[in-house]
Amino acid sequence: MRDLTWKKLSSTYIHKGPWATLRQDKCEMPDGRIVEDYFVLEYPNWVNAVAITADNKVIMVRQYRHSGGIVSLEIPGGVIDGDETPEHAAKRELLEETGYEFDKIELLGSVFANPATANNITYAYLATGGKKVSGQSLDEHEEIIIEEYTIEEVKQLLLGNKIPQALHCTALFYALVKLGELK
Amino acid sequence: MRDLTWKKLSSTYIHKGPWATLRQDKCEMPDGRIVEDYFVLEYPNWVNAVAITADNKVIMVRQYRHSGGIVSLEIPGGVIDGDETPEHAAKRELLEETGYEFDKIELLGSVFANPATANNITYAYLATGGKKVSGQSLDEHEEIIIEEYTIEEVKQLLLGNKIPQALHCTALFYALVKLGELK
Repeated sequence: MRDLTWKKLSSTYIHKGPWATLRQDKCEMPDGRIVEDYFVLEYPNWVNAVAITADNKVIMVRQYRHSGGIVSLEIPGGVIDGDETPEHAAKRELLEETGYEFDKIELLGSVFANPATANNITYAYLATGGKKVSGQSLDEHEEIIIEEYTIEEVKQLLLGNKIPQALHCTALFYALVKLGELK
Repeated sequence: MRDLTWKKLSSTYIHKGPWATLRQDKCEMPDGRIVEDYFVLEYPNWVNAVAITADNKVIMVRQYRHSGGIVSLEIPGGVIDGDETPEHAAKRELLEETGYEFDKIELLGSVFANPATANNITYAYLATGGKKVSGQSLDEHEEIIIEEYTIEEVKQLLLGNKIPQALHCTALFYALVKLGELK
């Protein structure tokens, strides 16, 4: 197959910050054409998890998402810190956001929110056998409402387009297939 | 249910451009706490489409995605122009990227790539009965390889985590459910 990748000729940072870093690259396409200004958003990699309790309830989180201006029903997740493994980050985020620990955690897959605009990948997990071990331990400015649903309810929410974030939809679809709820 | 939404107190643009606009907002949380610097990426809304030909092949597009540094197998799609309707944008993008017109186009749902970081939504369509009517008509710096797969092959690619973009995974899952390929 023919090589479609670009060569990066130079790179400039427009904004560097803890929550958003915007970079401008000059690139060369395989046929020699020059792309003068390709914008790349740099983020750390992310994790999310379909989290199921010991009594088979799915733990969902509801929170305000300011960029979209919506209150969003989501699965738990967050940023991978420093040299943390994705699995460790998933367990840590689950504990912080929900106060649950899980018997088992398995990778469902990994996807980009958008590899055209942003450089980071999200690792999606299925966590099962959850037991409540503590309260929430949230970051500043996090306000997260925990809700529990049956697997069938989550399936209906997902199919009814009530889960508004594509990375979370993807993880939920993978989990439902893995659990035999979609064939 | 308690109100989780934030009030925007002020807003500053860090970068404004055709491909990436980065805004910094100061907000007030419902309990009165102030968020000094929330970063919002502004984009136009997007469309994508699961595009099926009259002989039941799914039209996929393969292209280099520089931010992720990957060659990505995707469904066709793009930006909604100005006051264009999402359905018009989907038909236009399908024609430009693949050279196909479709008998029928139906909305599958709409999702955010990430409502935490970006303000735009993506409308996902199912287009069926595709007929080739022209060649590709690509934007500058677009280099897109068209590939056709059976529905079963696409299902296996999706379940095998070979579709790396979450907005596209979500549209494909919705389409497979609508087509009765996942129940």
